[in-house]
Amino acid sequence: MESAIPQHLVTARTRHRRVPDDYAPPYPSFVARHKPSVQRVVMAYFGIQTQGAPLPAAEQAIAGITSAFAAGDGPAHWDQARYIDEAGFTNVVTVAYWNDRKKFDDWFPAARDSWTGAQRAQGGFGDGFGTFIEVLYPSVEGYETLFSSLGRPEGVAVLADDMSGEVQEHAYWGGMRDRIPKSQTNEMAPAGAARAVRDGARIQVIPHDNVCLIRSGQDWGDTETAERKMYLEDVEPVLREGMDFLRDSGRSIGCYANRYMTVVSADGGQAEKSYGMSWWKSLAALERWAESHPTHVRIFGAAMKYLSTLGPAAKLRLYHEVTVARADEQFFEYLNWTAPRK
Amino acid sequence: MESAIPQHLVTARTRHRRVPDDYAPPYPSFVARHKPSVQRVVMAYFGIQTQGAPLPAAEQAIAGITSAFAAGDGPAHWDQARYIDEAGFTNVVTVAYWNDRKKFDDWFPAARDSWTGAQRAQGGFGDGFGTFIEVLYPSVEGYETLFSSLGRPEGVAVLADDMSGEVQEHAYWGGMRDRIPKSQTNEMAPAGAARAVRDGARIQVIPHDNVCLIRSGQDWGDTETAERKMYLEDVEPVLREGMDFLRDSGRSIGCYANRYMTVVSADGGQAEKSYGMSWWKSLAALERWAESHPTHVRIFGAAMKYLSTLGPAAKLRLYHEVTVARADEQFFEYLNWTAPRK
Repeated sequence: MESAIPQHLVTARTRHRRVPDDYAPPYPSFVARHKPSVQRVVMAYFGIQTQGAPLPAAEQAIAGITSAFAAGDGPAHWDQARYIDEAGFTNVVTVAYWNDRKKFDDWFPAARDSWTGAQRAQGGFGDGFGTFIEVLYPSVEGYETLFSSLGRPEGVAVLADDMSGEVQEHAYWGGMRDRIPKSQTNEMAPAGAARAVRDGARIQVIPHDNVCLIRSGQDWGDTETAERKMYLEDVEPVLREGMDFLRDSGRSIGCYANRYMTVVSADGGQAEKSYGMSWWKSLAALERWAESHPTHVRIFGAAMKYLSTLGPAAKLRLYHEVTVARADEQFFEYLNWTAPRK
Repeated sequence: MESAIPQHLVTARTRHRRVPDDYAPPYPSFVARHKPSVQRVVMAYFGIQTQGAPLPAAEQAIAGITSAFAAGDGPAHWDQARYIDEAGFTNVVTVAYWNDRKKFDDWFPAARDSWTGAQRAQGGFGDGFGTFIEVLYPSVEGYETLFSSLGRPEGVAVLADDMSGEVQEHAYWGGMRDRIPKSQTNEMAPAGAARAVRDGARIQVIPHDNVCLIRSGQDWGDTETAERKMYLEDVEPVLREGMDFLRDSGRSIGCYANRYMTVVSADGGQAEKSYGMSWWKSLAALERWAESHPTHVRIFGAAMKYLSTLGPAAKLRLYHEVTVARADEQFFEYLNWTAPRK
């Protein structure tokens, strides 16, 4: 058993963990481990918003960005997913990860220019799609990961040099916070006020401090008959209900946006993977929803039962990555884009 | 909105609350308030253990203790409840509350002598019942209460001088700890080892520090048709399942004992009230069960939904009292008593 906080990020605490030192979780979970030289990562979401399936111009834009990823300074990993937003638009979201801020900074300007910048704006919007870029570049003290099993890293964990052994800080409310190294000394309370700056068809969001992003995924590709049925019939509908609540009514509880996405497979079809991606006013707001909203309480109850019962036999893979970012570790830009939520 | 910790017990914190200062609970709850001169309370459980319904001798013992309660130094409040333990014995438990340790100390020796002491032992046990006394005398820093509504205090709260307004620290995991004044500076970790000392038919338990007791009750007497059906059919069976789990399998997770009791009404029948009373190795062990055991997660989910939905219209009344006591704030004595759990 080891701490989710790697040795080189352990500091003198001013804030306590929520569990005693002899706490033993009821089932194993693991976290991604970067080598100590990695100080910062980049998570960059490039979105396309279209009416119906993407038209050739949109497909071309997507092909353009993934082709740009292949450059020397491009991301170490990326994946792609789709969802229909609450206004009925199809969104294709390609997320790319770096573990070197400098490489991203060198790579990004041209990509931005073509995606949400002057180059794209010059072409007009007769091709009928909107675009957005949402980026976090947190220090390694500002985010955490969690995996229910080893062998198939997802998201930022693909960049990690290794996975941990079984970690202690999970399977209790507050584990997410306790896994973030900053929590040793920092409440991570939101500060300041976000504002949107509109310039023609472009909107930039100037964020506040300590916005929180969660990407929380599930992979049922390895499940067999009974377990698959259990996931698809018992767990997924409850999960979807929670995702719909956040999408449609999240604002009232501090959820700025939620996207429940289906991962796109290598052949362009639907992978047997999905993830929820949501933006929050604060880690505390995410904690409160997770702990007390009936849909998530049911998700959690089902997951606890599932993982405690099936143990190592479970083939369903669960993971998440949660980031709390300073204002200067965030970037949001939208072009010819329709805010799906009024 | 006020803090559950009364002003006169607020100290400079070395440990943080689990919620930010702007946390707003989704429904109201209240706590008992003693006048500042009350420094310590006493919660004394007097139990009878019999095969089947109590025989006249046992009834006489119970009448004797309740008659002793009427003395000048007797308790400010008491109530009585029954349950069948896992070995099939009927238990009648009379619990009495003082808010003055000195009065209790003056009153207790004679009561103890007749209940689990020399006087009762002298009579032999041909009358066929066992007895026990379990007492906590915590400082007011060491316990908390919570009520879903005003107007009908239960347990130690009957002694209180007032009830609070709506308190902030509830409806999230960790609220129980945050309501205990000691949590401002103290982890309340268990310390030392408990041991049993047997002397003939008498067993005394010498406890360890920071044993935790919860009395958690429900009163469905005021509920009407639809709500009553919802409580009895949807909530109570889930609650019972959790209580049975703790009774039968609690040891593995730090629950020393659990009694799911039906309150005895003034006429000796069953009141429409019950409470679970359980002894725990630590507050942390209680927290972990409450947060992660499927039965309690379902209880919590149901309660959150119920109270959030019905709001002030809910007629079901819920309350609890939770104490964390030092070793020298506890007393346990059993006479001619059968440990129901092997």
